[in-house]
Order: sequence, then structure tokens, then C-alpha cells
Amino acid sequence: MSPSRTPDPARRNPQTTAAILEAALAMARESGLAKVSIEGIAARAGVGKRTIYRWWPSKGAVVLDAWAQRLEDRLFKHLQSAQSDDFEADLKQMVKDSWLGAIGDSRPVLAWLIGEAQHDPNLANELRDRLIGPTRDRVAVRIRRAQDEGQVAPDIDPYRAIDLIYAQLYYRLLVSPGPHDEAFTESVADLALRGLRPR
Amino acid sequence: MSPSRTPDPARRNPQTTAAILEAALAMARESGLAKVSIEGIAARAGVGKRTIYRWWPSKGAVVLDAWAQRLEDRLFKHLQSAQSDDFEADLKQMVKDSWLGAIGDSRPVLAWLIGEAQHDPNLANELRDRLIGPTRDRVAVRIRRAQDEGQVAPDIDPYRAIDLIYAQLYYRLLVSPGPHDEAFTESVADLALRGLRPR
Repeated sequence: MSPSRTPDPARRNPQTTAAILEAALAMARESGLAKVSIEGIAARAGVGKRTIYRWWPSKGAVVLDAWAQRLEDRLFKHLQSAQSDDFEADLKQMVKDSWLGAIGDSRPVLAWLIGEAQHDPNLANELRDRLIGPTRDRVAVRIRRAQDEGQVAPDIDPYRAIDLIYAQLYYRLLVSPGPHDEAFTESVADLALRGLRPR
Repeated sequence: MSPSRTPDPARRNPQTTAAILEAALAMARESGLAKVSIEGIAARAGVGKRTIYRWWPSKGAVVLDAWAQRLEDRLFKHLQSAQSDDFEADLKQMVKDSWLGAIGDSRPVLAWLIGEAQHDPNLANELRDRLIGPTRDRVAVRIRRAQDEGQVAPDIDPYRAIDLIYAQLYYRLLVSPGPHDEAFTESVADLALRGLRPR
């Protein structure tokens, strides 16, 4: 989180911060994201609105912060545990564990955050810095290894390979809906692998 | 547009409708989509807010209606003109003409509409009924022909093939930004084709 966008998180009061993030998540869960407001979060956390506005630029930023803190350890652990010698098996595991496991029932939160990010450049930056970018970097490491080991064609940019895989998940979430289940994540990996394998 | 969501467009006054849609587009262009409001559109079109609310459920619906009316003929014509015997050439043409040509500078409008659709189920339905679904259906026809002619593997669901292609475009627009140029649309088609070709 860059200091030019929001104050250094280390300078926030930890108890107050925890109460605000807890309130934001609880409101999102109970009333739906559409009903989340800075006013509501402030009232529930027992703080003033100005405290929230001093530390976060928007309600989307509060929800992202609350959600990412819960998610990132679990998500990044899943991505790093895919370290067998079989890229196909690792890819299927990574896609399933991250999309159905770590993100799982929070997919509507992710969809809402990305929706908000379309008219909130700060939130778009935070999303990229905290979730999208770090996820892509971790998957890229595994793809480069698969290229070194001859399981992925060497002429493909690892980040374009990631586009091919992850774009299918986000497209179904945001644009053209369908089931999010293991049959889908398997098919996402299978379809991408058809194009990624050495020719 | 289903009558259960908004009144039959045929029953709207054509002059008033045109003035409202024109005002919505002009406001989006001049002030940015974030500043579009039903109040602003009503003032600019010289109609009452209630007229707009009677015909459209949200500002997103007005912008979608205005934008889709301008876009759909051009977009669908592009998709249907890809009728050579070379699927690779046709696919590259379709992706370039639709994403850089027909949608072109309006990509931010599309991103904003999809963002709004994440918390507006009516708008999500309209987007699918008017743009996403018809686009997918037209591309599916071309993919089925390529399957009949042995240029695309017969065991791939045409709609999953479309996911593989179009998801890359939307992912870059909505999630992980990068340039939208001909090098990109070429690479989108190339990468998808690697996986779609018969093995």
C-alpha cells in the first residue's frame, strides 16, 4: 500500500483497525455488499467516520483490506504448495485450491471489488498490488519451472500463459456466468494446457 | 429487453427516448461515467426524472441502451463478415474488428457497465441479452463451421472455445491491465488457437 494513497498502515491504531475491518466484513456478510457504507461501518465499529476516511479512501478500500487480510495467507500458501514434478497436476491443484478453496464463497466479494474498481482507480491499484499481482507472480514462478522442465512451450510469455488460465475464471465470474465447480476448474486447466504444452 | 424488467420499448415516445439516450451518451463523453446521473440526463434531455425511471430501471440501463444501439449493428456485422475458408485469419479479423474497431474507444464504457452490473442484476441481464450473448452466439456459428472443416478440434465445446478467446480481452480490460492494440489481439487469437487446433 503506497503512502501516497493512504497513510502508512503501521500508524493506524491496531485495535481500532481490527474493529473497523471486522465491522466491514460482518456488514458485507449480513446485509450484502450493496448495503455497506462508511457510516454503517463507523457505527458498528464504534468509531467516527473521519477515522475511517483518514485511513482508507473509500468503502471499497476498507472491504478489500478486510478481505485481503483474511485471504492472502491462505491463497499464497495454496499457490506455493504446487511443487510436484507434474505441471498438469500442479496447475489443476492451484486453480482448484485458489478459486474454489481460498476464494470460494467470497467470489461475490471479489466480483463487487472489481466492479467498484472500474470507477475507483485507487481501489484498482490496491487490488492489483495486494491480490492480482502477487498471485500472478507466484504462478509465473511455477510456469517458468515447467518451461525449464519441458512441460510448457518455451516461447510463451509466462504472464500471457497466466492470462489464458485465470482469464477464464474471471470472465465467468464477471461477464458470462456459469457454475464454479471442480468440473469447471479442471476444464479451465485442460483447455489452457492444450495451448501451453510444447508442440 | 423483457417486459418484466422494463416496459416494452415500443411503447416509449420515440423523440423523448432519442433525446434521453443522446443526453446520456453526451454526458458520459463530456463528464465521465462517474458523473452520469438520472437527474443530469433528465435536465439535459428536458424531461422529468419520472419519465426516465418509468422506462429504465437505473442510470446503467440508460447508458447501456444508448451505447448498445450505436454498437450492436457495427459489432454484429463485423462478426458475421468473417466468412473466409481460413479460420485463423477470420478469428484474428473478428477479434481485432470487434475489440479495437466496433468497441474501440468505448472500452471504458464497457468496463463501467460491467462494473455496475456486479451490483445490479437487471443490468447484468441486459448486458448478457443484448451484447454478450448475441456476440457469443455469432462467434459460435463460425467455430462450429471450423470444427466441421477440421480447423478446430471437434471435442471442444464452442462456447468454451469462446471463453478461451474473449476471456483474455475482458481480463485485460477489467482485472489485469495492459495495452489494447493489434499486437495484443493477434496474440489473443494465436494463444487460443494453439489450444483449439486439432491434435
